[in-house]
Amino acid sequence: MGRLSELFAPETVAVVGATDRKGAVGRAILENLRGDFAGEVVPINPNREEVLGMTCYPDVASAPSIDLGVVVVPPPIVVDSVRELGESGVENVVVITAGFGETGSEGAARERDLRSVADEFDLNLVGPNSLGIMNTAVGMNATFGPENALEGSVSFMSQSGAFITAVLDWANEQEIGFQDVVSLGNKTVLDETDFVQEWGDSEDTDVIIGYLEGIDDGREFIDTASEVTDETPIVLVKSGRTDAGAKAASSHTGAIAGSERAYETGLEQAGVLRAASVQELFDYARALSGLPVPETDGVAVVTNAGGPGVLTTDAIGDSGLGMASFTDETIDALAEAMPEEANVYNPIDAIGDADVERFDEALDIALSDPNVGAAVVVSAPTAVLDYADLAEVVIERTEEYGKPVVTSMMGGARSRAAEETLRESGIPNYFDPARAVSGLDALSTYREISERSVGEPATFDVDRERAREILARARDRDDNRLGVESMDLLEAYGIPTPHGEIVDDPADAREIAAEIDGDVVMKIVSPDISHKSDIGGVAVGVADEEVTDTFEDLVARARNYQPDARILGVQVQELLDLEASTETIVGMNRDPQFGPLLLFGLGGIFVEILEDTSVRVAPIGEGEAREMVDEIQAAPLLRGARGRQPADVDGVVETVQRLSQLVTDFPAILELDINPLVAGPEGVQAIDLRLTVDTEAFK
Amino acid sequence: MGRLSELFAPETVAVVGATDRKGAVGRAILENLRGDFAGEVVPINPNREEVLGMTCYPDVASAPSIDLGVVVVPPPIVVDSVRELGESGVENVVVITAGFGETGSEGAARERDLRSVADEFDLNLVGPNSLGIMNTAVGMNATFGPENALEGSVSFMSQSGAFITAVLDWANEQEIGFQDVVSLGNKTVLDETDFVQEWGDSEDTDVIIGYLEGIDDGREFIDTASEVTDETPIVLVKSGRTDAGAKAASSHTGAIAGSERAYETGLEQAGVLRAASVQELFDYARALSGLPVPETDGVAVVTNAGGPGVLTTDAIGDSGLGMASFTDETIDALAEAMPEEANVYNPIDAIGDADVERFDEALDIALSDPNVGAAVVVSAPTAVLDYADLAEVVIERTEEYGKPVVTSMMGGARSRAAEETLRESGIPNYFDPARAVSGLDALSTYREISERSVGEPATFDVDRERAREILARARDRDDNRLGVESMDLLEAYGIPTPHGEIVDDPADAREIAAEIDGDVVMKIVSPDISHKSDIGGVAVGVADEEVTDTFEDLVARARNYQPDARILGVQVQELLDLEASTETIVGMNRDPQFGPLLLFGLGGIFVEILEDTSVRVAPIGEGEAREMVDEIQAAPLLRGARGRQPADVDGVVETVQRLSQLVTDFPAILELDINPLVAGPEGVQAIDLRLTVDTEAFK
Repeated sequence: MGRLSELFAPETVAVVGATDRKGAVGRAILENLRGDFAGEVVPINPNREEVLGMTCYPDVASAPSIDLGVVVVPPPIVVDSVRELGESGVENVVVITAGFGETGSEGAARERDLRSVADEFDLNLVGPNSLGIMNTAVGMNATFGPENALEGSVSFMSQSGAFITAVLDWANEQEIGFQDVVSLGNKTVLDETDFVQEWGDSEDTDVIIGYLEGIDDGREFIDTASEVTDETPIVLVKSGRTDAGAKAASSHTGAIAGSERAYETGLEQAGVLRAASVQELFDYARALSGLPVPETDGVAVVTNAGGPGVLTTDAIGDSGLGMASFTDETIDALAEAMPEEANVYNPIDAIGDADVERFDEALDIALSDPNVGAAVVVSAPTAVLDYADLAEVVIERTEEYGKPVVTSMMGGARSRAAEETLRESGIPNYFDPARAVSGLDALSTYREISERSVGEPATFDVDRERAREILARARDRDDNRLGVESMDLLEAYGIPTPHGEIVDDPADAREIAAEIDGDVVMKIVSPDISHKSDIGGVAVGVADEEVTDTFEDLVARARNYQPDARILGVQVQELLDLEASTETIVGMNRDPQFGPLLLFGLGGIFVEILEDTSVRVAPIGEGEAREMVDEIQAAPLLRGARGRQPADVDGVVETVQRLSQLVTDFPAILELDINPLVAGPEGVQAIDLRLTVDTEAFK
Repeated sequence: MGRLSELFAPETVAVVGATDRKGAVGRAILENLRGDFAGEVVPINPNREEVLGMTCYPDVASAPSIDLGVVVVPPPIVVDSVRELGESGVENVVVITAGFGETGSEGAARERDLRSVADEFDLNLVGPNSLGIMNTAVGMNATFGPENALEGSVSFMSQSGAFITAVLDWANEQEIGFQDVVSLGNKTVLDETDFVQEWGDSEDTDVIIGYLEGIDDGREFIDTASEVTDETPIVLVKSGRTDAGAKAASSHTGAIAGSERAYETGLEQAGVLRAASVQELFDYARALSGLPVPETDGVAVVTNAGGPGVLTTDAIGDSGLGMASFTDETIDALAEAMPEEANVYNPIDAIGDADVERFDEALDIALSDPNVGAAVVVSAPTAVLDYADLAEVVIERTEEYGKPVVTSMMGGARSRAAEETLRESGIPNYFDPARAVSGLDALSTYREISERSVGEPATFDVDRERAREILARARDRDDNRLGVESMDLLEAYGIPTPHGEIVDDPADAREIAAEIDGDVVMKIVSPDISHKSDIGGVAVGVADEEVTDTFEDLVARARNYQPDARILGVQVQELLDLEASTETIVGMNRDPQFGPLLLFGLGGIFVEILEDTSVRVAPIGEGEAREMVDEIQAAPLLRGARGRQPADVDGVVETVQRLSQLVTDFPAILELDINPLVAGPEGVQAIDLRLTVDTEAFK
């Protein structure tokens, strides 16, 4: 039982703003609530004594004890009504009324007031601007929509009320049932993370699905969802995926959209199955709620039709699944049981004259193979095959083996009765074999999610105090863009940097150069000059005797380029052997919803032209850091492709984690790029650094 | 009227092998033919005098004049029966009987005989191993399947008979009608190209669709289809897309699969819309047969529901379409007509209380905008919106403006009647807005296909005779792998190569080196040593005085590496300035179905690690050659990204075309790689060459 159990299963529901005026929302809700609700419904309205034959109370205080208050009063008096509920000890509130943050500054102020009252009384508040909520177990329909949900084990939240209305009519026709339904509205208090938590704790919810246009706190969502998905799958449509869609979503909800890239990785890190369309959302939900999770990814296909068998095989090839490789025993058994012309390898083509017994034999043999985790039964209608019988066979074998079986009994009218029978047993049937396969694919993806171990972010022994001081210095200079002069920030977090120092005069430069064995690199250091190479501000391979002249040259060029540029000095740095090394970029920027988004890629054209990068929301553990390195297309170059020496990949992975720790420790770092981080066979070195700091926020 | 008009609209059809034995194919066909067929049906069977109440003739010769013969006799007597038809002057034959190439060597021999007879009498022969054919205009169902097709304007071919059976039952339920239906069977004579040609010539076919597992002659298909698609869209599911699927298809049809890469580009070059699934195939067919083609890609979305509006916008973002940018007039008109809370930018959110009048106004205003090529009407069910009325409005506005409108009237039972009304007017309605958008996307893609001008392959003035001699020399040496010694092959086709020659002794080497201004590159030339650099067989930057020693060194190293290697000499070549250049690869290999497949990519890691290549079936024109160069991800590097000097892209484009001409002129060239083709600011140069020649085939 979760914290919100009383919200969904109240004994008494008050409708604040109840009315019997036709067409009014306050009447629609009352009528819906009277439907099948097991508990008591209490109308509240100071102007009426009776509504739809029920005693109406003037205010909450005078009404009987209330578990849930549904508020449908006009916008200006919503806050007072909610306060009244709070004062009477009601903990659960749904605000239906619109006219808050979605409508402009007056509404936004009203929404802030609502939030304060909710905080004051610690209310579980849904909305405002919500269609309402439903719970089918107690028959509660506290919405003003035209449809009621069927009972089932899927719990459903939506940021769009219209989406709920549209879906329920269709879902009822398709006999898809729900446990809880929530129209999230403006999410002033309760949001997607709260409901994911609630349904994760609930025994009655097998699958959580949702339509979201944004996630309020990405990190919190990841933390909550990634625990819930160990036991309960979550499938979401997150709209605003495309630029055009994000613009439309932002105009719909008024929220600032985070980047799709952050949502993509954030939802994956959260263990969410992401559906691209309404069809996928429900195809996945149906498979996840009705079928067992397969133990392996090998799929057997049983068919009476070669062409559709090939199409199914293609769909499996497109998915994360694979065609099962049959054991010799399976092949022998099939050869024995099937006619000579049949194909006993996978896909099993039992050929056109296959009757239900032959399908049953093939399915029995295939499902008993340990390499088979799931099966697809694909059939074309023939005179000798009865689809109703085939449905029975599929149901029996699914139960017997505990392995998921999906079907594509192709056809129209001929397949409807069988489809109905299958549906009652939770087995999806689709005309298109690709849709049947996509349900299985969701099951297999969910198995991987539930089995994964993300691991805690590693905590390295770092010098946090020193880093704080470096950032404080920047704040004192009121300088929000830092560069190579702040390389000691990286050193404080154990990220290797080349030997060298920033010096103010040629004498010091000579001293540092003398300490360094061999030629050096010298660079002008100025927060006002970002493209140092372009203005001749970098000298590579400077010999001892050239250090003084080079120092003067670099300073002169900088002055020449920009007379008022602040020059912090000249960096004298050891010259690295870059021949055997690969330039990488490790960076971070902050997403409005998900926070610190780490980025990794190879330098130069790989990032700029090929856009070959990987991202994760920080903080991350070693596993995720390694995934970041491995998933770029050019990863083989780091691992020693084409006769190169392999780079120190472990060093890169550790650097990514150390950066993750740094940006997590200091939210004031808004953006940071180590470019390049040079990865050679012997280790990694951060050569250059740029970061932007929020000097206001940093204390 | 096409060549095959009599095949589809015969006046008299003979069933050779007619019988009234229950369950026999010869009876099923007879029964189907008797159904609605306007013409005469003639049973032929020497063992019966009457079949199903019809006079049965002992042989074709004694029967009345026949336009089409349908053969269902046992496999061993099929060839004789077809010969008898040919001898009697019957030109059109459908062989239903199976047991030919798909069953082993005996069947394959039988199929060769069938082919000979068909050739002898110049027969239009469908099959063998075919479900049969249908034409709804004359009511002919000459198949043994359980379903008949509804009348319509889509013509449908399938390499799988079961696929037809499966589809028809479903299509009838969905009220999708067909003109012709053909089960292609083994395609011994008539294949996909013949039917594309036929239906392209036919007035009655608006859309051609098909399920194919392979295409017999890829080049012929491209040539035919790319003309037909100027007027008639072609949508195909080509299965065996994935490795697993290709294996399954090959086991189903016994054909050797060409590469998916070749099919992908070949079908695109042919102007075919490729559907990934059965659902897509029919979604596209429905849109293409029922709706006008939009003149621009801008789409307007009209909705009463914010969330579904955002989902639709995402689907448009994913597609080749775009959200239309409204004119000021449109925005003003919408602002006037819609309530204040409505969003008058695209997507138009007419908000939840929109009735049919408001939808109509919004749709009227949007469709009158010149930037709007098409519209999507998306709705959630509400108390104030009547879906049946909305359907009428959509139909009227579609007709009025001649612009395609698709709908997603979301809901289940509530939307069925409206869906039916829309369907009768050719307007698809889907629960999922993404499916509605995908139909529009198909229309827009088809407009691009029908408007494209591929252009004739350029024919350069080349020295074909010289190329022939070079290849002949290789044949005389019985050497099927050629290398750098055959660079003059490229010269003969006008592809630039560096100044240089292959010499036999140090004196000649010195002479060539002296002719070349500056240092030279020297390479060992041997057909037996492929990785010359690895064995030290390449010397770069050789000065005049080092030429003799280098010559001896290179030969010694080659001998040392492989004592019996044939050494053709040492190549002395000018040293190119590679600093400012980019290495590219231009190559060709032959696909079993499509023939010469050209490949382009940047050298080294771009091809080997990143697999960043483009392909086209040769011959190609300038437009396609330019597309090849432009569509690789790394193309900006050639065009001068990141401060590089732009390479001679025109030179690359011309080289690709010249190679296209070379490999088209000489089918004996099986494989060829110019690697690298160095592209610098001043031009391109082919540095190295490898090719494989079919010395047997070449004459």
